[in-house]
Amino acid sequence: MAGDGSDQRALQYEQTLMYGRYTQELGVYAKEEAARLRESGQRRSRTLDLLEYDKGRCAKCRICTVRCQKFLISRVGEDWIFLILLGLVMALVSWVVDFCIAICLQAQKWMYGGLDSNLFLQYLAWVTYPVVLITFSAGFTQILAPQAVGSGIPEMKTILRGVVLKEYLTFKTFVAKVIGLTCALGSGMPLGKEGPFVHIASLCAALLSKFMSLFGGIYENESRNIEMLAAACAVGVGCCFAAPIGGVLFSIEVTSTFFAVRNYWRGFFAATFSAFIFRVLAVWNRDEETITALFKTRFRLDFPFDLQELPAFAVIGIASGFGGALFVYLNRLIVQFIRKQKTINKFLMKKRLLYPALVTLLISTLTFPPGFGQFMAGKLTQGESLVTLLDNRTWAKQGIAEEFDYIGNAQAWKHPQVNVFVTLVLFIVMKFWMSALATTIPVPCGAFMPVFVIGAAFGRLVGECMAAWFPDGIHSDESIYPIVPGGYAVVGAAALSGAVTHTVSTAVIVFELTGQISHILPVMIAVILANAVAQSLQPSLYDSIIRIKKLPYLPELGWGHHEKYNIRVEDIMVRDVRYITLNCCYRDLHSVLMLGHLKTLALVESAESMILLGSIERAQLQSLLSQQLSRSRRMEYIRERAAAEKKCLSDVSNSDSEDGRQRASQEVRFQISTEESTVSPTRPASQKPLKPALKRPSVMERPTKLPTSPQDHSGIALKSLFCSSPDVEALEKNNNMETPVSPEQRRPSKRVRISVVDDGDVEDDMTLREIAEWEERQLDEQVDFNNCKIDPAPFQLVERTSLHKTHTIFSLLGLDHAYVTSIGRLIGVVSLKELRKAIEGSVTVKGVKVRPPLASFRDSGTSSSETEATELHKLWDRHRNVSLPGEQPTSESDEKSQ
Amino acid sequence: MAGDGSDQRALQYEQTLMYGRYTQELGVYAKEEAARLRESGQRRSRTLDLLEYDKGRCAKCRICTVRCQKFLISRVGEDWIFLILLGLVMALVSWVVDFCIAICLQAQKWMYGGLDSNLFLQYLAWVTYPVVLITFSAGFTQILAPQAVGSGIPEMKTILRGVVLKEYLTFKTFVAKVIGLTCALGSGMPLGKEGPFVHIASLCAALLSKFMSLFGGIYENESRNIEMLAAACAVGVGCCFAAPIGGVLFSIEVTSTFFAVRNYWRGFFAATFSAFIFRVLAVWNRDEETITALFKTRFRLDFPFDLQELPAFAVIGIASGFGGALFVYLNRLIVQFIRKQKTINKFLMKKRLLYPALVTLLISTLTFPPGFGQFMAGKLTQGESLVTLLDNRTWAKQGIAEEFDYIGNAQAWKHPQVNVFVTLVLFIVMKFWMSALATTIPVPCGAFMPVFVIGAAFGRLVGECMAAWFPDGIHSDESIYPIVPGGYAVVGAAALSGAVTHTVSTAVIVFELTGQISHILPVMIAVILANAVAQSLQPSLYDSIIRIKKLPYLPELGWGHHEKYNIRVEDIMVRDVRYITLNCCYRDLHSVLMLGHLKTLALVESAESMILLGSIERAQLQSLLSQQLSRSRRMEYIRERAAAEKKCLSDVSNSDSEDGRQRASQEVRFQISTEESTVSPTRPASQKPLKPALKRPSVMERPTKLPTSPQDHSGIALKSLFCSSPDVEALEKNNNMETPVSPEQRRPSKRVRISVVDDGDVEDDMTLREIAEWEERQLDEQVDFNNCKIDPAPFQLVERTSLHKTHTIFSLLGLDHAYVTSIGRLIGVVSLKELRKAIEGSVTVKGVKVRPPLASFRDSGTSSSETEATELHKLWDRHRNVSLPGEQPTSESDEKSQ
Repeated sequence: MAGDGSDQRALQYEQTLMYGRYTQELGVYAKEEAARLRESGQRRSRTLDLLEYDKGRCAKCRICTVRCQKFLISRVGEDWIFLILLGLVMALVSWVVDFCIAICLQAQKWMYGGLDSNLFLQYLAWVTYPVVLITFSAGFTQILAPQAVGSGIPEMKTILRGVVLKEYLTFKTFVAKVIGLTCALGSGMPLGKEGPFVHIASLCAALLSKFMSLFGGIYENESRNIEMLAAACAVGVGCCFAAPIGGVLFSIEVTSTFFAVRNYWRGFFAATFSAFIFRVLAVWNRDEETITALFKTRFRLDFPFDLQELPAFAVIGIASGFGGALFVYLNRLIVQFIRKQKTINKFLMKKRLLYPALVTLLISTLTFPPGFGQFMAGKLTQGESLVTLLDNRTWAKQGIAEEFDYIGNAQAWKHPQVNVFVTLVLFIVMKFWMSALATTIPVPCGAFMPVFVIGAAFGRLVGECMAAWFPDGIHSDESIYPIVPGGYAVVGAAALSGAVTHTVSTAVIVFELTGQISHILPVMIAVILANAVAQSLQPSLYDSIIRIKKLPYLPELGWGHHEKYNIRVEDIMVRDVRYITLNCCYRDLHSVLMLGHLKTLALVESAESMILLGSIERAQLQSLLSQQLSRSRRMEYIRERAAAEKKCLSDVSNSDSEDGRQRASQEVRFQISTEESTVSPTRPASQKPLKPALKRPSVMERPTKLPTSPQDHSGIALKSLFCSSPDVEALEKNNNMETPVSPEQRRPSKRVRISVVDDGDVEDDMTLREIAEWEERQLDEQVDFNNCKIDPAPFQLVERTSLHKTHTIFSLLGLDHAYVTSIGRLIGVVSLKELRKAIEGSVTVKGVKVRPPLASFRDSGTSSSETEATELHKLWDRHRNVSLPGEQPTSESDEKSQ
Repeated sequence: MAGDGSDQRALQYEQTLMYGRYTQELGVYAKEEAARLRESGQRRSRTLDLLEYDKGRCAKCRICTVRCQKFLISRVGEDWIFLILLGLVMALVSWVVDFCIAICLQAQKWMYGGLDSNLFLQYLAWVTYPVVLITFSAGFTQILAPQAVGSGIPEMKTILRGVVLKEYLTFKTFVAKVIGLTCALGSGMPLGKEGPFVHIASLCAALLSKFMSLFGGIYENESRNIEMLAAACAVGVGCCFAAPIGGVLFSIEVTSTFFAVRNYWRGFFAATFSAFIFRVLAVWNRDEETITALFKTRFRLDFPFDLQELPAFAVIGIASGFGGALFVYLNRLIVQFIRKQKTINKFLMKKRLLYPALVTLLISTLTFPPGFGQFMAGKLTQGESLVTLLDNRTWAKQGIAEEFDYIGNAQAWKHPQVNVFVTLVLFIVMKFWMSALATTIPVPCGAFMPVFVIGAAFGRLVGECMAAWFPDGIHSDESIYPIVPGGYAVVGAAALSGAVTHTVSTAVIVFELTGQISHILPVMIAVILANAVAQSLQPSLYDSIIRIKKLPYLPELGWGHHEKYNIRVEDIMVRDVRYITLNCCYRDLHSVLMLGHLKTLALVESAESMILLGSIERAQLQSLLSQQLSRSRRMEYIRERAAAEKKCLSDVSNSDSEDGRQRASQEVRFQISTEESTVSPTRPASQKPLKPALKRPSVMERPTKLPTSPQDHSGIALKSLFCSSPDVEALEKNNNMETPVSPEQRRPSKRVRISVVDDGDVEDDMTLREIAEWEERQLDEQVDFNNCKIDPAPFQLVERTSLHKTHTIFSLLGLDHAYVTSIGRLIGVVSLKELRKAIEGSVTVKGVKVRPPLASFRDSGTSSSETEATELHKLWDRHRNVSLPGEQPTSESDEKSQ
């Protein structure tokens, strides 16, 4: 048990090793691990021997098996095996999910088709089916793993940023996401598969990684895990669309801030393998003759488009940009509206499944084919509409829809009364708000595919208009090249999905999805224009969700905001840094811990020099303090006092078991956040597992948990740390659980006799007052940092580091905070919060608030070289005449700059 | 002049601001810049007024022009304008270069065709033409800018890594590269355009940036420049192949280690615009009817390949991997062979143009179409061969080449005696070594295109074999789908070029070049396999060139070398750190500077505490020292002494002008590396401009230049710093240049009277001995760091930081060195050199040297928490009892670990 615990702790240390963090027990861990492996190897060889003696007949084959197993185990730690397994599993998952969705959709069609005698029954079947599926999906995910709700890309973005959202990568979530997604998509609602697949792939990678670590555990490493998760995101997109290149690029754009090129091959390898298997399964299943694109187009190769059509493509791009921004805005609006309306909210919260059911009812009613659905091709599933939209024939030849020979699914677009333009417009408008609404349903779902289809429809609309306008094509030379509206659909799909997700790689996805790259330039132009427009209006859908869910993420710097080069760290840093000195006493520690809720505290040499030596976790300090005031130390003190007084106390009033019970109850008491049972003391703040952020908006304010080591019989002063108003009653009750507390005993002035047996030789007979006195004395002692884990090289910035650079460094290294130093002296601290505020402040209020109030002072003030020189001088003076007391450089520089 | 100088210096500071470096004068610079802009604005409005008064008639139009100009200038700083301009310029350059190359090649063909009566004359024409062009190209680049030689991608990689190779981004280099490249490619040698275009685009971006900074100078910023250079690399590839997506990806893979996703759009935007303009120019020039791919293919869409053909594609991938590694090896071998052969080398060095001429002669002789060229399609240019190789018809139907209807250029592959397989094999083999040889010619040239063509030929060969083997295709179902050898050629081209460059994005380039993406899975599989094989055998071509040229670059960590997680910083760091203390005297400074050649020195609080306060540039210290021993200070001393002695000296022996002359000569003397005239003192070591690395292999050992401020009349002690054996003679000669030195004066014991007039009031009448004594006294003074620029937050690591993490941080932040600290105490330093050694050591010797000797000690030794605790204890003790003298913690920890 003890070994397991230390293993776990070592792993956690390893995980916290983001940058230069302290990892003491790794060496020990490596040794233990080696010993464990050696032992298991011996055990295995012992079984080998046993086998040989035991059974004569099939011994050989068994030996062979064991050897193969050994070989496999030795190989299993290698990256490419992991990636192949990941690709394989994800391809299978993707195929199975697709298969199930297809069956669901077919079942709906079959039911709908079978009941064509009675319109009402037909409607009931058309509506009930999706409502049941969505409700089941919502309920299932709600019960099994609420983390599985939604796209998952925002969470993956946060995780890849370095924040650990542990519950997002569990087996439960995997099951909930896969089944929930299948049901949700099987309902035929305008929902996407791609976002959830990124999450599913990451889940898969995390679980595989856990599984593989059973064999080659030494290689478990946080940076490797992050690399694998990044590859998994690529696999997710890759096997969803059979688009390996686009998948890699999309996942990079969506999840990363800085991308390590050395991980590039991982993504490509896994995504290609996955896409390959995904398509091969289709061939084996006789769905396809050979491996081709998912939504294959057949545009002509020799003259894909005319140069003069480019303005139309550019218009599609710009309009898609506005459309994409509108979509993100609409989506956010709906979420915020539902959250704000308290009465609605209360009602929906009580009946959690009502909201999905209502939304589904509304949408499916509107798409009911004999009803309004006839004007918007409501009969078609998402995939079918996409196929028809990408068709290379023109629907509106000569402007008259009737002339076109509608076959198969394309017939759904034809309506006897209205022409195809009206159908398309209605489709676009209805699907637009439907998709924005549907993606707010708490089921596992993405928004990429619906947006993609809407974009394709919009492109088709423009293309059909162009075809109607120029029936013989624009080209003026000898040969006639009619306009291909399908090409416009491709462009529109790429542009709108690019605008919503703020990515350029949708262009590549579109090529891989359609299997044709002939429209590369129009697509690229449209996508870039759409991005330019959308990025200047709204955040991406994923960033929007991150903001809604208040996930701990650092926003991006906008498109070429040069002004930000002018903000410096000194303008945004917090100058009033909480610090502890090397020679401080426990009282200082106590007061510092009482004051703020910072996760780490700076350790400086002394208050005069302010030389930064390192940083200490809050939890570390708390454990230091609790150790100093611990019961065992008090017992020792009592023992010593007893030895000094030569008195022998013999009245043992309690048994050991009772002591144990009391101890346990104390432990529970000090676990203020009781969610996890094994939290290592050195765990950094940012890596705390988060509850679904919707419920617990501010992560920062949660009190840090006290470590629950058995010696933690903490004292009064300590308790005041955690309970803002230390009530003595509770303490008393706590200290002698076994006796009912009388009203007299409750008064703190009274001497309450607490008699608990320690290790068997002395008795804890101190009164509360004595304890308080003893603790007061203890608090005056100097802190002994020997048993304390110090991060000896916390990240340091200089006052003049620009915001741009600070942002880069924070996002590169996944920092949570950084100290600002000036020639070794600590002068400030910048945390993610300040940085986020600075970036958001200057992003939203353009040109006005860009230069913070302090920045203007900086230019007109004295040259900083002088101030730094004087600071250096001070440092030097200190060496010459040692006593230079009471000077507080921090507050001084604070005054100077305000 | 002074303003300009400070501007320049400020810019240089800005450029050195890699991470947390000290940038004192930026605020001042910003103010100056603002003032300058204000002033110029006033001037402009004044011209506006003048114009209105001057000419009545066209005043309005002029005002309009001026206003437009103003608007343009205000807009000109924005990124997208810059990117559009860059794309436009590069598209024009690319098109013009292509046009010129086409003319050159046509001219050669015309000459060759016109002389078909005489074989010898024909041969002469065939051979002379490329020899002349290549020789001219080599000579031209050699004379104008030797930096233009070669691909340029390795240099760009180094520049984007943060190293400043300034001469690589000048206008001269631009001209040399463009003209040299045009001539080299016009010769018809197997050379590529893509590498040089990356360089040309970067040159273009740098020059444009310089040009734009005339308008919006405040936005000049190093990180922005790097961003723009990264975008430029994408533009280079994009406009070369009309492949925007592939260009962006290729440039990322080739040049970056860590890629900032926020720069992604820049590359896409500029590359798309550039590719668009490039292709539009072709349409306008009536070369094409509309915008299409450069090497358009017309494979069938419905059944591109059979599933059972995949093994053949995999074989192409694996073989290409070996081929690519062989190519890199061959290329390096040729370079090293020529360099090693001293007699050849000497001869070639003397006649620099002989080598290119000889190589060209050899290659063009072998490709002479009536000669050996007939067996290897020697008649075709690179582009023509590529077009024929990608043809969608089968050459070897039923195994008999004659049946194929060869038309146009494809006829070159047909030979009456030998069949097409032999032609292809000969083509591959000959072109292989020819390309490897040709790329060593000192002209601007790349290797991508030749390799691409060879790969296509290899793929074609495999495809033709498959077609001969399965005449009716492999597919067993009803319809017959014959094998398309052109598809194999596409796969081969992507695979071989991917193997040589170690990139996956050649796949995307291939799709964009051919305009078809139907073969995506075979291409991806082949490229990934080729990469896997090639990366495990050889470095990429660019890394190989980096190694040959010894450019300062950090090698990549290999594919999944997990072992490297086990090496820690403590195993590779240099424990014997040169440092200076805050209270050291100038003598210490002197001795430290004498000892090593490190670029920066650590500043610690004291030798006992070893608390790291910052780092100081070597040049800064030298200027401190030279200031302390400067003539002006000596003069002051003399003046004081004179005032004290109340003596008046009146014999003025020299005039002011002579003094000036002597001063100048002294200055020249102290410029030990006299290449640049304006080097700022704070310039970091890694950013020194490099001479072509071939000539000056070790950059690190160059002595740092002394800053040439006018007060630099440095003394004797200082001179001993730069001349390893300080000879007094030279000093004497130096100190009184105007008088011929007699033999007696040369003896240092003699009193040499040096009389130079300073500012007019006192005379320098000190003897050498007096000077030496005065300097000795000066050296004993404590250093005053007030005027010294200190980097207050040098990068710090911890002992236990893993090699993997260290590598990441070094490449992320572009570090040159990092200090290793333990709770504020400096205990070691890691520089790029150590890191490189550690990585290369463990990469080459697999499994054996991976764990360095020290690493084994670490595990068995004492727990490091103890040692750190004791170290902390020491620090603490120091505070209690101040005197703890003579203890050298560094050496102690050094002993412990050895």
